[in-house]
Amino acid sequence: MEDVKITYIGGGSQQWALHLMADLALSKSLSGTLTLYDIDNEAAEKNKEISANIFGRPEANAKFKVEVEPDLDTALKGSDFVVISIEPGPTEKRFIDLKIPEKYGIFQSVGDTIGPGGMARAVRSLPVMADFAHHIMAVCPDAWVINYTNPMTWCTAALFEAEPEIKAVGCCHEVFHTQEMLGRWVRDHYKVDLPKRHDIVLDISGVNHFTFATRAMWNGQDILGEFEKSLPALSPEQLTKNALEREAEENWFDCDFRVATDFLKRFGVLGAAGDRHLAEFVPWYLKSKEELNSWGVAITPYEWRVRRSKEQDKARKAFLEADLKPSGEEGVKMIEALAGADGATCRTQCNLPNIGQNDFAPEGHIVESYGLISKNKIEPVACGVLPESVQSLESRIMTVQGYILEGIMNEDKATVYEGFALDPLNSLTSRKSEELFDELFEALEVNWG
Amino acid sequence: MEDVKITYIGGGSQQWALHLMADLALSKSLSGTLTLYDIDNEAAEKNKEISANIFGRPEANAKFKVEVEPDLDTALKGSDFVVISIEPGPTEKRFIDLKIPEKYGIFQSVGDTIGPGGMARAVRSLPVMADFAHHIMAVCPDAWVINYTNPMTWCTAALFEAEPEIKAVGCCHEVFHTQEMLGRWVRDHYKVDLPKRHDIVLDISGVNHFTFATRAMWNGQDILGEFEKSLPALSPEQLTKNALEREAEENWFDCDFRVATDFLKRFGVLGAAGDRHLAEFVPWYLKSKEELNSWGVAITPYEWRVRRSKEQDKARKAFLEADLKPSGEEGVKMIEALAGADGATCRTQCNLPNIGQNDFAPEGHIVESYGLISKNKIEPVACGVLPESVQSLESRIMTVQGYILEGIMNEDKATVYEGFALDPLNSLTSRKSEELFDELFEALEVNWG
Amino acid sequence: MEDVKITYIGGGSQQWALHLMADLALSKSLSGTLTLYDIDNEAAEKNKEISANIFGRPEANAKFKVEVEPDLDTALKGSDFVVISIEPGPTEKRFIDLKIPEKYGIFQSVGDTIGPGGMARAVRSLPVMADFAHHIMAVCPDAWVINYTNPMTWCTAALFEAEPEIKAVGCCHEVFHTQEMLGRWVRDHYKVDLPKRHDIVLDISGVNHFTFATRAMWNGQDILGEFEKSLPALSPEQLTKNALEREAEENWFDCDFRVATDFLKRFGVLGAAGDRHLAEFVPWYLKSKEELNSWGVAITPYEWRVRRSKEQDKARKAFLEADLKPSGEEGVKMIEALAGADGATCRTQCNLPNIGQNDFAPEGHIVESYGLISKNKIEPVACGVLPESVQSLESRIMTVQGYILEGIMNEDKATVYEGFALDPLNSLTSRKSEELFDELFEALEVNWG
Amino acid sequence: MEDVKITYIGGGSQQWALHLMADLALSKSLSGTLTLYDIDNEAAEKNKEISANIFGRPEANAKFKVEVEPDLDTALKGSDFVVISIEPGPTEKRFIDLKIPEKYGIFQSVGDTIGPGGMARAVRSLPVMADFAHHIMAVCPDAWVINYTNPMTWCTAALFEAEPEIKAVGCCHEVFHTQEMLGRWVRDHYKVDLPKRHDIVLDISGVNHFTFATRAMWNGQDILGEFEKSLPALSPEQLTKNALEREAEENWFDCDFRVATDFLKRFGVLGAAGDRHLAEFVPWYLKSKEELNSWGVAITPYEWRVRRSKEQDKARKAFLEADLKPSGEEGVKMIEALAGADGATCRTQCNLPNIGQNDFAPEGHIVESYGLISKNKIEPVACGVLPESVQSLESRIMTVQGYILEGIMNEDKATVYEGFALDPLNSLTSRKSEELFDELFEALEVNWG
Repeated sequence: MEDVKITYIGGGSQQWALHLMADLALSKSLSGTLTLYDIDNEAAEKNKEISANIFGRPEANAKFKVEVEPDLDTALKGSDFVVISIEPGPTEKRFIDLKIPEKYGIFQSVGDTIGPGGMARAVRSLPVMADFAHHIMAVCPDAWVINYTNPMTWCTAALFEAEPEIKAVGCCHEVFHTQEMLGRWVRDHYKVDLPKRHDIVLDISGVNHFTFATRAMWNGQDILGEFEKSLPALSPEQLTKNALEREAEENWFDCDFRVATDFLKRFGVLGAAGDRHLAEFVPWYLKSKEELNSWGVAITPYEWRVRRSKEQDKARKAFLEADLKPSGEEGVKMIEALAGADGATCRTQCNLPNIGQNDFAPEGHIVESYGLISKNKIEPVACGVLPESVQSLESRIMTVQGYILEGIMNEDKATVYEGFALDPLNSLTSRKSEELFDELFEALEVNWG
Repeated sequence: MEDVKITYIGGGSQQWALHLMADLALSKSLSGTLTLYDIDNEAAEKNKEISANIFGRPEANAKFKVEVEPDLDTALKGSDFVVISIEPGPTEKRFIDLKIPEKYGIFQSVGDTIGPGGMARAVRSLPVMADFAHHIMAVCPDAWVINYTNPMTWCTAALFEAEPEIKAVGCCHEVFHTQEMLGRWVRDHYKVDLPKRHDIVLDISGVNHFTFATRAMWNGQDILGEFEKSLPALSPEQLTKNALEREAEENWFDCDFRVATDFLKRFGVLGAAGDRHLAEFVPWYLKSKEELNSWGVAITPYEWRVRRSKEQDKARKAFLEADLKPSGEEGVKMIEALAGADGATCRTQCNLPNIGQNDFAPEGHIVESYGLISKNKIEPVACGVLPESVQSLESRIMTVQGYILEGIMNEDKATVYEGFALDPLNSLTSRKSEELFDELFEALEVNWG
Repeated sequence: MEDVKITYIGGGSQQWALHLMADLALSKSLSGTLTLYDIDNEAAEKNKEISANIFGRPEANAKFKVEVEPDLDTALKGSDFVVISIEPGPTEKRFIDLKIPEKYGIFQSVGDTIGPGGMARAVRSLPVMADFAHHIMAVCPDAWVINYTNPMTWCTAALFEAEPEIKAVGCCHEVFHTQEMLGRWVRDHYKVDLPKRHDIVLDISGVNHFTFATRAMWNGQDILGEFEKSLPALSPEQLTKNALEREAEENWFDCDFRVATDFLKRFGVLGAAGDRHLAEFVPWYLKSKEELNSWGVAITPYEWRVRRSKEQDKARKAFLEADLKPSGEEGVKMIEALAGADGATCRTQCNLPNIGQNDFAPEGHIVESYGLISKNKIEPVACGVLPESVQSLESRIMTVQGYILEGIMNEDKATVYEGFALDPLNSLTSRKSEELFDELFEALEVNWG
Repeated sequence: MEDVKITYIGGGSQQWALHLMADLALSKSLSGTLTLYDIDNEAAEKNKEISANIFGRPEANAKFKVEVEPDLDTALKGSDFVVISIEPGPTEKRFIDLKIPEKYGIFQSVGDTIGPGGMARAVRSLPVMADFAHHIMAVCPDAWVINYTNPMTWCTAALFEAEPEIKAVGCCHEVFHTQEMLGRWVRDHYKVDLPKRHDIVLDISGVNHFTFATRAMWNGQDILGEFEKSLPALSPEQLTKNALEREAEENWFDCDFRVATDFLKRFGVLGAAGDRHLAEFVPWYLKSKEELNSWGVAITPYEWRVRRSKEQDKARKAFLEADLKPSGEEGVKMIEALAGADGATCRTQCNLPNIGQNDFAPEGHIVESYGLISKNKIEPVACGVLPESVQSLESRIMTVQGYILEGIMNEDKATVYEGFALDPLNSLTSRKSEELFDELFEALEVNWG
C-alpha cells in the first residue's frame, strides 16, 4: 500500500468529495490521509462525518484518515496530491452566466465552458485558481494537482499561467460517455455482450468538451466507419420528443449523440463529448431552445441548478443508503499510477499544455488528449490528427480562449472583449454583442484596472 | 512608345472594355493592338465600333488598333497581356447566387465573393477560368494575365491551379475607396485640400474584399489612430436613413464605412473594402436587411442587376457623350510598368499566391497585398501584420476558400460542402444548411462525378 | 495463448533470428507459426534446424511451429506480424560504405546510419524495403511490420513512401544502453542495488541513433542534473587507452558515453545512443581515428565485419551451447501487446511518421520517440521538447534524410547529392565532395535514369 | 530641396564620411545640416575641414552645413536621419577576431560577420549599438537610423533589441557587386553595351553576406539559367594564380565569384555576396589558406587592416585630389526617398526584422531582402523563395545568430557558447572549440555577470 496525502480543495457542496472517498475506499493499493478544505467549512465537516461510514464499510479496501482543515496552507502542507473541484460562488451567481445571455437570445445548454456563460464563469474562477497555484507552489511544490473545475481549459491554463512549474493536469469524464455509447452500439450491432468502457479505445484530439475521435477501436478493429454507416435515421420530431421527455424527467445530461454524429457526417470525425457541450462551440445547433430540442438535447435550467445546490443533505443521505461503488471517474486510478502503486500505468484523458500531442495547436495551449500516467509522470500521447476543417473550428476556439485568458489574467476588459467578439456562439450583431458584454461585466462586479 | 498586344477576354456586356480603352487612349507610353474576345461576339463588335471614337478624340495620346476575334486561340496569339473580366452569365443566373439563399434567410449584400452566393458563382466561373489558363499557356505562355473577374480569390486561384507557371495577377479597385474616404477625412480634419488618392498610403493584408489596413499614412504620418479618435458617432437611425436613400437612388456601391470602422474599433485595424463586401465575411452585420441598413448599407438587388445587364446600349451611348477620363482603375498603369515603358514602376494592390507577404496564410493561397510592379516583374510587398484576432477571421475564410476551390477543381461535392459548412455567413442550422446546399447544386446543374 | 503467425524476412546470416526464437520460446502468452524467409535460403534452413532445440528446451514456455519458405508471397500469406532484418549484402559490399570514404579522410565509426556510408547503404537497401512493402500490402495488409534494418530512419521511411497505409514501426535497442549506463550510475552514486533497465525512465526525441534524453527518472525523480554534476573527469589519454583496449578485445560496441555527456554539457540534453552513433551526426568528434579514440570510441573495422559474417556456424554453435535467455530486444513484448495477449501494454522506442510527437520535425518524417503499444495499436508519446540548439542539429539531419530519401525513391542522383552535400559529416571541400560522391555511385553500380 | 538634418555617428577614421558627403553634395533634392560625431573627435574635425572643399566644388548641387559635435545627445538633437558606421576599435583589436582563431586553424577571409571572428567583433560592438539606440529614442525618436556597421545582422538586431520601436534599417553594398558581375557577363555573352547596375534586377533572400539570388533579370528576362550554362571552366590552378595576384596587388575585395556559382551549381541559387563573405558561412571552402586561394579568394590580412587604419591622412588627400563622384552606396538615395524628395521611391537591399519577406525565417530575425523605400516608409519585398537545402543552411546561421545575440545582450557566456558551438565554420573538435572560446573571451576582457 502506497501511503499518500491528498488534499481536496472544494467539492464540499457537491457529491464530488463523496465519490472520491468511495473510489479511495475501493483502492487496493493506496492508504493515507485525506484533508478536506472548503470555503464552506460546514459542508466539509458534513463530508468528513460521512467518511467514517464509507471507509468503515466491509467492501472498503483502503484505510484513509479524513480530516477537515479550514486554513489552506495548513491543508496543503505535506500533500502528495491536490484535487481541485470548486464552484465560484453561490450557485445563484450562475444567473449571470445563463440568464443574462438568454435575454439576448443566446441559449446555452450548459454555459460553463465557452460562449458568454463560459466567459463569465471564467472571470469568476480564474483568479481563485491562480491563487491556489501560488499557495501550492509555496507549500507543496512537488504535489500533483488534479483539476476537475470548469471551465476546464481556462482553469487549468490559469494554474500554469500563475505558476509555470506546477505539476497540474485537468481531468474530465466527458469522453467516457462516448465510449459507453459506442459500447452499446457494439453490443447491438455485433450481437455481443456489452463491452466494458475501456474496451472501446479512442484516439481523441481537441480542447475539453470539444474533442473529436479520429478512430474508435473495439477488439483491435476500427469501428468508426461501420458505426457511421449503420446509424439509424432519427427524425427531428422523434428527437424533440426525446428531449422533452428528458426535460420532464430532469435527465439533463443524457443525449442521443446526434450532434456528435452530425460532426462525423459533415467532417469525418466523431464529436467526443456530450451533445450539450459540443453544441456550444459552433453556431449551428443553438439558434433556439426548439432547435436544440430537435437534436434530442435539453437545456440544463438555471432554476434546477439552484434547487439542486440546496439539496445537498438529501444527496448525502442517498449516498449513504446506496452500495459503495466506483464513481466512474479515473482520478484515483491516476493517483495510484502517479504514486507508483504496484507499477500500474493508466491511459486516460488529460488536459495539458500542448507540446505536440495536438499538432496544430499553439505550443502551451491547454489541449485534451490521452495521456500515459506512470510513477510521478504524465506524458501526452499524440494520437489524433484532425481534418483541416475541424482544425479550423478548434483554432478559432483556441484564439477565443487565448484572448479571454490573457484578458482575465491581466484584468484587461478590451482583451477579453476581443475573444468574446470572436466566439462562434456569439453571433449577435456587433452592437448587441457590446451591450451583452457590458451587462455581463456590470453583473460580474469586477474591480479591474 | 512601347508596342504591345493586349487581348481582352470578356468585358463585352459591361463597360469594362470601354474603360480600358479610355485608359489606353490616355496612356503616354503605350501603343499597339487590342483584341476583343467575348462569347457575346456582338457585344465585342459594338465595343469595337466605339473604339474609333475613343482613340480618335483629341485628348487621346495612344494609338491602338482594335480588332474583334471570335476564336480564343487566334485572339491570344502573340499577346503580351491578357485581361480577363467575364461574367458566367447570363445575369439571370445570379438568381441562384442571390435569391435561393434569401429563401433561407441569408441576405448577401453583394453575393459574388463568399457565402453561398460566392460559392455558387465560383462553381459557374472556375471551370471557365481554368480553361482560359490552359489556352493561354498553350498559345502565349509569356503573357501577363490580369484578372478582374469575381470571385477574385477563387478565379485567380483557378488560373494557378490549372497552370502553376502562369504569370497572373488579380486586381481589384476596392481599396481605392478606402483611400478616398480617408482622403476626405484628411481634408475635413486637417482643413487642407483634398489629397490625391495616392497620397493616402496604406499597408494592407488579407484576402480580396476582406483586407485590413494596419497603417494609413498621409504626408509621412500614420493617421489611423487620429482617424479612429475623431470618428463622429452616427446613430443606427441615421445610418438606416442613409441606406434607404441609397436604395432610392440606386446608389448601391456607396457606404459610410461604418462596418470598416467597427472592425477598427473591435480589433484595431481598418476594414479596407466597402462595407457591403466586409459584411459578408462575418456573421455580425447581415442578420437581416434591416440590420444591414442600420450600418448604412443597401443590398444590391438581383432585379437591378438583371435590368442593368439589358441597358448596355444606353451605357455605351452615355460613355460616348462624356469626356474621355481615366477610369480610376490601375490596369493600364500596371501594363505600362510591366512593359517597361519609361522605366515606370507602380505600387498597387495585387492578388497573388502567398510567398510570405501574408505571414500567417498558407503558402500559395491567393492573398491581397501591395505589389511592386516593374518591367516583366510583380513582387509582393510584406507590409501588414494583422492582429491575431483578425488572423483568425482570415484563416477561417482561407479554409473555406481552400475546400471549395479543391472541391470545384476536382468536381467533388463533399469537399465543396466542407467549405460551405464552415463559412461564417452560413450560420444556418445544420439541417437547413444541407437543404440550401442541395437546392443550390440542383439549380447549378453541374454534371459532376 | 494468442495464436499468431510471424514471418521473419532476413536475419538468416546473423543471430537475429535465433534471438527472436529465444524470446518467442520464453513468451508466456504467444504460440503459433514462425516462417523464415531469407534470400540465403540455406541460412534460413540452418536456423530452422536450431529451432527444434530452442523450443524443445525445458525453460521454453511457448510452442511455435517453425518453417522455411523460399517464396516471399507464400511466406507472407496469413501473417499477423512481419519482422524485417536484412543486410543488403554480401558484407563485402560494406567496402563501399566504409573504405571509399576513408580514402577521403572520412572515418565513420559505424557507417550504417548517416554520412557517406549511411547514404551508400541506403542506396542499396531502400529499393529492397520498398519491394517488401508492396508485397506485404498485396498479401497481408493487416499485418504489423517490425523493421530492425539499418539505416533505420530511411528503411522505415521507404516502407511508408512505397505504401502509405502500411502498419509499420522501426525498432532499435540503442536507447537501452543509455538506460543501463544510467542504472549503473544510480547504483554507484546512490549506493543501491543495480536498477532494472525499465526503472530508468527516459524522455527521448530525435531521429534514430541521434536521439536525446531531456529527462531521466529513477524512482520518480529526475536524475539528469545530478548525473551531470557528478560525472567524473576522464582525460583524453585515459579515454584513448580505453578505446585501444576495446580495439584489442574487439569490443566495438562498448563506450564511456563521453560523447553523450559532451552533448549534455554543451546543450543540456543527454545523447541517447552509443557514442559511435552520436559522433557520426556532427563534425566535432570524427576528425581522425585518434580524435575519436580520445573520446573512448573505437571504429568498428570493415575487416572484422567481413570476418564475422563468415563465422555464422560458430555463432550458431555458441548459441546452442548457452542457456536460453532473453535477448534484451523488445520485439516479442511488442508482438504480445499488439496481439492483445493478456491485455499487456508496452512503452518502448518507436520509429514512426511524425504526427506531433516531435514538435519541430516535419509532418511525416520518421522520428524516434516512445510509443505506447496496445492491442493492434501503436501511438507515439510526445515526451521530449529539445532545446533550440539541438533542434537545429536534428533539423539539418532531417533535411539531409529528406533529400536522400526522395532522390533514391525517384532514382535521381542530383537530389541525392543535395542531401549528401549538406551532411555535417561531409565537411570535405566542395570539389572533394563531388569526387567522393561520384566514386561511391560508380561502386554502387546503380542503373538509374 | 528637402531640408534635413543628418547625424553621422562614427566614420571618422575611414573614408565613409567622405563618401557620404560626396553623395550628399551630388544630390539634387537635399540640403541641410550634417553633424559629425566620432569618439575620435580629431578625425571628425579633419573630415569637417574637407567638407568645405567637397560642397564648394562646381559639380556639387546640394548645400550642407557641416559641423562637428563631441556630445552624442547634442549631435542627435533634431535629427531626421542618423547614419551609423563605427568600428569597435582601435583596429588592433581585430587581432582577437582574426589572429586568435588562426592559431586553431580557423582562417577567416573577412572575419567581421560570422564565425569566431564575427562573434568576437559582435561582443565588442553590440553594447555600443544598444547604447546608441537608447540615446536616439530619447533624443530624436522619429529619426530614421541607417546602419552600415558590421556585423550587420547583429548590429541591426541590437538596435531593435534595445529599442523595439526604433525606425532602423541596415544597409550593405555587397549585392551590388553581384549585379555588376552579372552585368559584365551580359555584356560579354550577349555582345551588348555594359548594362547599368540597376538594369540587373535580382530577387534575393537570406541574411546579410549570405544572401542568394533566386532570379536575375536583365531586359525583362531571367538570365540565371543561361548564366549557369555558359560559365567557363576555371581550374583550381588558374584560380590560385588569380588569388595570389590579388594578394600581391593588395586587391582583397575582388573575386571570381566561383564560390557564388558553386552554390548555384549545388543548390540552384546564386550566392549574392562576395566569395570572401560566402565562404565563411559553410565548412567547405575555408579549410586552409590554400583551399580558399584555389577558389580565387585572398584572405584580407590583419596586418594590412592595421596599416590602412594608420593611413587615413593619405586617403583623405587622395580623395581631395580626385573628381567628386558617386560612392556607389545608396544611402543618400534612401534618404531622398524617406524625406519624400520629389516623390522618389527606391528599391534597394534592406536588413530588417522579418515580417514574412523571408518566409522560413523566425519572425523578427533581421533578414536581408529588397525593400521599397518611400516617404517615411520602408517596406520589405517578398521576392525570393529559397530551396529547402539553402533554407537549412540559413536556418543554422539564424540559430547561431539568435543564441549569440541573446547571450551578448544578457551578458551570458553559456548562451553565447551554444551559438558558437553550432557555427558551421567552427568545425573544431569539441575540446578545441572550448579552448578557443575561452581564449577569445579572455582577450575580449568583458566584465560580465
